[in-house]
Amino acid sequence: MKRILVVGAGLSATSLIDYLLEKSDKNNWQVTVGDYDYNLALQKVNDHPNGIALEFDVFDVEQRNDAIRDADIVVSMLPASMHVLLAEDCVIQGVNMITASYVSKEIKALNEKAEEKGVLLLNEIGLDPGIDHLSAKKIIDEIQAKGGEITLFKSFCGGLVAPEYDNNPWNYKFTWNPRNVVLAGQGTAQFIRNNQPKFIAYNKLFRRTELIEVLDEGQFEGYANRDSLSYREIYGLDNISTMFRGTLRRPGFSEAWDVFVRMGMTDDSFTISNLSQMTWRNFTNSFLVYDKEKSVEDKLQDYLSVDDAIIEKIAWLGMFEQTKIGLDEGSPAQVLQHLLEQKWALQSEDKDMIVMQHLFDYTLNNINYHLKSSLVLRGKDQVHTAMSMTVGLPVAIATELILNGEITLSGVRIPTDKEIYLPVLERLKEFDIDFVEEEFIV
Amino acid sequence: MKRILVVGAGLSATSLIDYLLEKSDKNNWQVTVGDYDYNLALQKVNDHPNGIALEFDVFDVEQRNDAIRDADIVVSMLPASMHVLLAEDCVIQGVNMITASYVSKEIKALNEKAEEKGVLLLNEIGLDPGIDHLSAKKIIDEIQAKGGEITLFKSFCGGLVAPEYDNNPWNYKFTWNPRNVVLAGQGTAQFIRNNQPKFIAYNKLFRRTELIEVLDEGQFEGYANRDSLSYREIYGLDNISTMFRGTLRRPGFSEAWDVFVRMGMTDDSFTISNLSQMTWRNFTNSFLVYDKEKSVEDKLQDYLSVDDAIIEKIAWLGMFEQTKIGLDEGSPAQVLQHLLEQKWALQSEDKDMIVMQHLFDYTLNNINYHLKSSLVLRGKDQVHTAMSMTVGLPVAIATELILNGEITLSGVRIPTDKEIYLPVLERLKEFDIDFVEEEFIV
Repeated sequence: MKRILVVGAGLSATSLIDYLLEKSDKNNWQVTVGDYDYNLALQKVNDHPNGIALEFDVFDVEQRNDAIRDADIVVSMLPASMHVLLAEDCVIQGVNMITASYVSKEIKALNEKAEEKGVLLLNEIGLDPGIDHLSAKKIIDEIQAKGGEITLFKSFCGGLVAPEYDNNPWNYKFTWNPRNVVLAGQGTAQFIRNNQPKFIAYNKLFRRTELIEVLDEGQFEGYANRDSLSYREIYGLDNISTMFRGTLRRPGFSEAWDVFVRMGMTDDSFTISNLSQMTWRNFTNSFLVYDKEKSVEDKLQDYLSVDDAIIEKIAWLGMFEQTKIGLDEGSPAQVLQHLLEQKWALQSEDKDMIVMQHLFDYTLNNINYHLKSSLVLRGKDQVHTAMSMTVGLPVAIATELILNGEITLSGVRIPTDKEIYLPVLERLKEFDIDFVEEEFIV
Repeated sequence: MKRILVVGAGLSATSLIDYLLEKSDKNNWQVTVGDYDYNLALQKVNDHPNGIALEFDVFDVEQRNDAIRDADIVVSMLPASMHVLLAEDCVIQGVNMITASYVSKEIKALNEKAEEKGVLLLNEIGLDPGIDHLSAKKIIDEIQAKGGEITLFKSFCGGLVAPEYDNNPWNYKFTWNPRNVVLAGQGTAQFIRNNQPKFIAYNKLFRRTELIEVLDEGQFEGYANRDSLSYREIYGLDNISTMFRGTLRRPGFSEAWDVFVRMGMTDDSFTISNLSQMTWRNFTNSFLVYDKEKSVEDKLQDYLSVDDAIIEKIAWLGMFEQTKIGLDEGSPAQVLQHLLEQKWALQSEDKDMIVMQHLFDYTLNNINYHLKSSLVLRGKDQVHTAMSMTVGLPVAIATELILNGEITLSGVRIPTDKEIYLPVLERLKEFDIDFVEEEFIV
C-alpha cells in the first residue's frame, strides 16, 4: 500500500482529492487529508474507505514530521509561503513532495540536498503556473526538434465567469482568491519585444493591453504579468526576440480596473482607521481633489479622463452610493475587496471558465509559421470549478505518475521535462483539458 | 568633565561636531567622534584638543557597549535603522541619547523601559523632522494659550540650491541624500481637508501640488508628504479640519518629475541585469510602447500627454542621448539616480538653501486670522551647508541643554515640549535660523 499525504483541503484541493480517492482502490492507495480545519478535511474525504481526515497544523514540528514519516508522497496545497516547512522535512526524510506554487528562493535552495537524497520536489504543476508550462514546453520542444527557430512566444491565461453566467458590466466574477485579483500587477511588468526589454509601470499596466481571439469564445484582453523575462531561460528560449506572458479579462475590464489603480484604491500598505461612519461615496471622494461645486462622479471623470462607460462600471459597483462601507478599518485594497466580494461573487448556479492561449511565431526551412494553441474549460458546478480542476488535476496526475514510477526525476523541478509533461497532458485529456492547435503560414 | 559620543561623522554631522567642539572648553566636554571610516572621524575632529576620533562599528557589541559606558550622552547620526542598536544599550546603561530621525516602532517600544531608568531618548530634532516641530508647536501652543482655535495648518519644507547658483531647467540640485529624493513619495499620501480624509496615489502625487510664496524668495510648489494625519495627535490638533505637510520644489519641478514616476523609473523593487550595452535612449525607450515610426521623444510625449517644456527638461538630463549608462545592473531607481547625481550635483562653489513655511488659520474672539511663519537659510559653503546646519545644530543644542540639566525629561520623546523647543529655537537664532511671522485678519 502507498500512502499519500495531502495537506490543505481548500477549494483548490477538491478535484485533486477526488481524483486520488477515485484511483485509490486500483492503486492500493491510502489518502490522508490534513487541514487546520478538521471539518473541511472530513468533508473532502467524504467517508471514502481509503481516505483519512486529519486535523493538521503545519507549524507543529512533531506532527509534521510524524505525518511525513508515514507518507510515501506529500502534496502541499497550503499557502505558498508554508511549503518550505514541509519541503525541508521531506528532504531529510527522503519523501517526494508536490506543490502547485512558484518555486520560492527557499525551495530552490533545497535543490542540492534533494538531489543527494534522490528526493523530487515538484512545483508549479497547477494551472498557471502548471498547465501553461506543460503545454508550452511540449510545443517548444516539438518545434525545436524539427529544427525550427522560435522568434515570438506570447502566453495568456485567465479565470473568468462562463459567458452563459456573465451578467454584469465588468464581465467578471471571482473564481479564485479575490485578494490576488485586487493586488495583481503591483510593481513593474517586464517583457521583451523585438529584442528590446520593455517595462510597464503599474499605473500604465491596465492601459497597455493586447486583444486576442480564443476559438469560438470571442475576444479577450491580456495585461502583462510581472515577469516574462525569466521564462526565456526556463523554456530554453534564451535568444527569443519577443516574449510576453499575460492575464486575460474580457475587453473593457482593464481600462475600468485602471481607475482603482490610479486612484490608489489597490494600495495595501497602510490602514484607514476611521471607516465605521464612512459611506462608499465618501470613500471614493477621499481619493479625489477637493471641489466645492462638482459631484463625486464629475470629479472622478475629470481626475482620470475616463469616459461614461467606465463611470457606469464604477457606479454599478456602488462606489458612488451613500451606504455605509461596513468595516471599521482596512487598507484601501481591503476596503475595495470587501465591496467586490459582494458584487463579483460567483452565484450558486454560476459556472466558471478557464481560458489559456499560447501564440508562437517560428521559422522552419525559411518558411514563417504562426501557431495558436488554445484551451477553454468550463466548470461543472461551484465545487468542481474549472479553476479547481485545472489546478488540482495536474497535481493529482503527477502524484500518480511518481507513485507508479513513471516519473523518476529528483531535485527541485518544474514540469518542463518531457518525462513529466507528456503523460500529464495525455491524462488531462480524459477531463476535456485539451489544447486546440491552429497553424498558419505567414 | 562630561563625555559626548557622536556616532556617524557624515555630511549631516559637520555643523553638529563643530558646535560641540567649539563649546567644549567652556563646558569641559570631551567629544568622541566614532565612524566606520576612521579618516572621516579624524577629519571632523580636526585635531581639536577636546576631540577624539574613533574607528567605530555599531555592530560590534563589545565596542558599542564600552563606548556607551564611557559616555554621558550618545548622539547617533547613523542611518535611521541602526539607532535601535545603540538605543537598547543606552537604556540598559542609563545613558541619554539623541537622534535626528523619525521615531521607529522599535525605538517607540523602548519608552517604558527608558522612563523607568530615567533615560531620555530624544528623536526628530534635526530639520524635518526637527525644526518643523519646534517652530510649529511653539505657535500652536501660543495660539491655544490665548484661547484661539486652529482650523487649518499646512507646513512645507524643502532643501534646494540657492537661487544665485540655480542654473538648470529643473531649478534643483541635490543638497541631501539623492536616494531619498528619487524614492520620495512612494505609497499613498494622506492628509485632511475640510474634515475629509484625502489620499493621493503616488502616480498623482506630483500633479496635485500647491503653490506658496515665501518672503522675498518667490514661489515654490509643495507636494504632499506621506503622512500628515498622525501629526494631529502629536501637535494636539485632534479636531483640526485641514492639515497638510508637504515638500517644496521650485514651480515646474514636480510636473516633470512625474514623468519618471509614471514611466516606472523610480521603481526600486527589481534589478535590470543587462545594462552594460544600454544607452540612455534605450533605457528611456524600454519604458515606452513599441512603435516602428515614432521617435522616443514623440512616444514619451504621447504616452504621458506632456508638453514641450517637460520634454526639454527630460532632454536636458540626457535621457534621449545615445551614450552608455555606465552601470552593469541596477533597479530603475538606481539607474535614474546614477544619471541625476551627475546632472544635479552641487558644484564646489554652489550654496544650498533651506525653505520652511507654516500656514495657520485660526479663530480668536470671533476674528479669523491667517498666520505665516517662514524660514529661509542659505548655506555658507559646500561643507557648512544650510542642510547640515539645520539638521546638526538642533541636535547639538539639545545635547548641550541635556548635559547642562536644562532638559530633564525622560522616555522616548520628540521636541514638542516647551522645555525643549523654547531654548533650542532661542539658540538657533545665533545662527540666523530664525522664523519671520506675518499675520493678517481674514
